[in-house]
Amino acid sequence: MSGFVSFVSSGPGDPELLTLKAVDRLSRADAVLFDDLSSGPILSHAREGADLVGVGKRAGRASPKQDHVSRLLVDYASTGARVVRLKSGDAGIFGRLEEETAALDAAGIGYEIIPGVPSACAAAAAAGIPLTRRLTARRVQFLTGADVTGGLPEANLAALADPLATTVVFMGKRTFPMLAAALIGAGLPAETPALLAEGVSTPAQRLWRGTLAGLAEEVQKAGDAPALILYGPLAGSDDA
Amino acid sequence: MSGFVSFVSSGPGDPELLTLKAVDRLSRADAVLFDDLSSGPILSHAREGADLVGVGKRAGRASPKQDHVSRLLVDYASTGARVVRLKSGDAGIFGRLEEETAALDAAGIGYEIIPGVPSACAAAAAAGIPLTRRLTARRVQFLTGADVTGGLPEANLAALADPLATTVVFMGKRTFPMLAAALIGAGLPAETPALLAEGVSTPAQRLWRGTLAGLAEEVQKAGDAPALILYGPLAGSDDA
Repeated sequence: MSGFVSFVSSGPGDPELLTLKAVDRLSRADAVLFDDLSSGPILSHAREGADLVGVGKRAGRASPKQDHVSRLLVDYASTGARVVRLKSGDAGIFGRLEEETAALDAAGIGYEIIPGVPSACAAAAAAGIPLTRRLTARRVQFLTGADVTGGLPEANLAALADPLATTVVFMGKRTFPMLAAALIGAGLPAETPALLAEGVSTPAQRLWRGTLAGLAEEVQKAGDAPALILYGPLAGSDDA
Repeated sequence: MSGFVSFVSSGPGDPELLTLKAVDRLSRADAVLFDDLSSGPILSHAREGADLVGVGKRAGRASPKQDHVSRLLVDYASTGARVVRLKSGDAGIFGRLEEETAALDAAGIGYEIIPGVPSACAAAAAAGIPLTRRLTARRVQFLTGADVTGGLPEANLAALADPLATTVVFMGKRTFPMLAAALIGAGLPAETPALLAEGVSTPAQRLWRGTLAGLAEEVQKAGDAPALILYGPLAGSDDA
């Protein structure tokens, strides 16, 4: 008998931002494989006696190799276990989900994907702003800081320097000075509102508001807490 | 004594995709103002005796004016009520949230924003695919079909025709043939994988997979159920 894997989105960190479906799957799992950002109080929803296995991946730190995580998933499920694979934010956004589903497909193991609250949505909510606005912020886009290091292809820069979009950069603190310079070089005003959101929805949450140029300075002073960077016309609203 | 408004994201439709925080706020509200897509079983979490007020807005149908909704919110909160303003998906994405928060700011009424599961994340999860993939789908972007009607500015088209992005078009069935033609004209292959997702996470869910060119035909046969269109390299995965 083969097991089953539920890829469960844990949301941004606040355990109250788990969905009812996520709580249900956690409460019935035999094993829970979790990342660093999906740990702590979120795991209190797991049933007593469940195997809780940390497979932490976090930018800039040594972590288990991706194929090791996939092998663990297959191994647990092959025992017939109900496995929850917890992924922070929404599992489908920058979670390397496909590498794990492909491993399960290859092993003939069934799975489901439970969507969740992306950290970008929680960051905007914490700042009291929406991610879109009719006419002046009509597109919203997410990317990771890692995609900045290899240089920015033409089309991509046109997308990222669009003054009518809200852009959220995940894991982008280290590369943001380079991105900001490229954006300003492409014509996006240095005064474009920008927001740094660290530890979103957790007790360590910290929001910093400024401009594209100012944030390029600020990130160099920031610590290594997980963070999102949001820029665009809405980032400067001061409703919060 | 002044009331308080919780903007609560109801998620894509499945009541199990509400967050714990959303359920908490619903269960304690004196009044719930809801959209068409946030109705039905989701409202069963409201406490008995709460005022349930439909302020439905749906593409292509007559609906209360936005300023009428804002006025209702202010009026309810001014009585000292705990008000929940339910918004489908994530409240910060294409929900005209700012127009309502501005009305509360002007009236001196406090509020909070509870983020939720965007319907785009639920559509991808239902199709068994992620929204991003390292290297080949490294950016994800959301827009609405309404933004297509006025023509596509240069920068915007460069963003939307990027073969290394996943794009989700909200409320885009009517204008998709025009968008697809523009994308293909801008160099995005007609064979780019595309997915139509109707009634995501509800009993009426229907997924259609094809190509950019094929979907431009398919949408003309589709009904008026709420739908998302997803295109990009991941839309064609057949894991589901």
